[in-house]
Amino acid sequence: MSETPTLPTAADIQARLLRGPYHQWLGLEVQAVREGEVELTARWREEWVVNAEKRYTHGGILAALVDLTADWALVSQTGRGVPTIDLRVDYLRPGIGSHFELRAEVLRLGSRVATTRMEFFGPDGVLMSAAAAAYIVS
Amino acid sequence: MSETPTLPTAADIQARLLRGPYHQWLGLEVQAVREGEVELTARWREEWVVNAEKRYTHGGILAALVDLTADWALVSQTGRGVPTIDLRVDYLRPGIGSHFELRAEVLRLGSRVATTRMEFFGPDGVLMSAAAAAYIVS
Amino acid sequence: MSETPTLPTAADIQARLLRGPYHQWLGLEVQAVREGEVELTARWREEWVVNAEKRYTHGGILAALVDLTADWALVSQTGRGVPTIDLRVDYLRPGIGSHFELRAEVLRLGSRVATTRMEFFGPDGVLMSAAAAAYIVS
Amino acid sequence: MSETPTLPTAADIQARLLRGPYHQWLGLEVQAVREGEVELTARWREEWVVNAEKRYTHGGILAALVDLTADWALVSQTGRGVPTIDLRVDYLRPGIGSHFELRAEVLRLGSRVATTRMEFFGPDGVLMSAAAAAYIVS
Repeated sequence: MSETPTLPTAADIQARLLRGPYHQWLGLEVQAVREGEVELTARWREEWVVNAEKRYTHGGILAALVDLTADWALVSQTGRGVPTIDLRVDYLRPGIGSHFELRAEVLRLGSRVATTRMEFFGPDGVLMSAAAAAYIVS
Repeated sequence: MSETPTLPTAADIQARLLRGPYHQWLGLEVQAVREGEVELTARWREEWVVNAEKRYTHGGILAALVDLTADWALVSQTGRGVPTIDLRVDYLRPGIGSHFELRAEVLRLGSRVATTRMEFFGPDGVLMSAAAAAYIVS
Repeated sequence: MSETPTLPTAADIQARLLRGPYHQWLGLEVQAVREGEVELTARWREEWVVNAEKRYTHGGILAALVDLTADWALVSQTGRGVPTIDLRVDYLRPGIGSHFELRAEVLRLGSRVATTRMEFFGPDGVLMSAAAAAYIVS
Repeated sequence: MSETPTLPTAADIQARLLRGPYHQWLGLEVQAVREGEVELTARWREEWVVNAEKRYTHGGILAALVDLTADWALVSQTGRGVPTIDLRVDYLRPGIGSHFELRAEVLRLGSRVATTRMEFFGPDGVLMSAAAAAYIVS
């Protein structure tokens, strides 16, 4: 962590992201990469439904999406993935829609631990979940 | 919430659990149901891998598993699924293995909100994640 | 909760805030009140020191400050204090200084539960802690 | 962290605990110290009241108490205090009473990060709050 690596492009992050089988399954696309920030979209899948009548997306899918978005915001600063210490997700509204938008920002990148804040939006730009997580960076 | 329904059997919970497409995908089996407590097992899937070399399970899968286990501990008390307000997962050790064991207990079932505590164990009985969540019950 | 009460003034909130003995002890002053948002300042006290050499503020003081700031952001919308369901605080930097600035915003005010996000700044405007909490509103 | 120091006695922990002005103000007494576990009691103070009519203890006081209890459970293993990364408190029941009992256990002491779980009991042994926190250990 003695120096920040060159900021990777959205295409760089996209290529690395898709190495993970679970990330492929989540239909992720990198929309924007800034210093300590990333924006992704995810394509809804039939398997995500928790309630067959109401067609809500399972909260665990949302948890996965906010966690990995934060992880990739850290990749944009540290050049590599880092283990999650803990994650909190606030579920504000049921996740319904065909695609979702995700944003993560690094609140602090320390020498040992990083803290991030994440947001999950529905197709209409409404905030559906907010989240925070801590990661081990060294 | 005026009276506690009769405690459902593990088979009852199993049948209801498998109505959700995401639950089927997670390979869930109900092992035990007690008042305000449930034990499940989950069968590992190739799609859960977050890191192709290390074969760690994605943290979002663990989040989904602890959330739904708590949800079903509440079903055993309230007779129905309830929306998650928020969820915290502490990742203690990487999730590696072919199957996992999950336990949830209701710490308090209030008239409006319930709070639960969850544990996620690896094949060897080692605690891999601990979690807590709050739910709207009425 | 059928209608939103008139937005109280900073002076209204200040008067109500100081009814609580713990709030007086924390040296709170209301700086701004907006729909679902509040800004407070707190005056540092010698009793807050957790480490006599380094003079760090105790994390529990920070937890109290973010919790009550969120609570008063809700007062600005609901007209009354509401019980905390749970609280998460991310400690980004040690709390050192003679006074602190606090901001809270209501992310969602539902019919039964509200979720808030809070920030705690040092004298120089640096973000020292970020937090989130859930409250019972009816 | 190359070796675990000898387990300190309750009197050792008590003497170190009372060096902090905030800890004195909280009326703390160490009841038991085990490997990775500690039990404390706290004496209620008039300044803790958040609501003058109902005499509830402020949630921030509870947050401080669970955080420091976990910190001292880590002292029993690491020999020194460690910075808090983040803290989650679940408020189950209002904190009313003249004294409180606190327990913390270390769920995992890693080489870089530790995770703890805490419980806060009222005078009658009822669980009033549950909590979890992460700490930087090296």
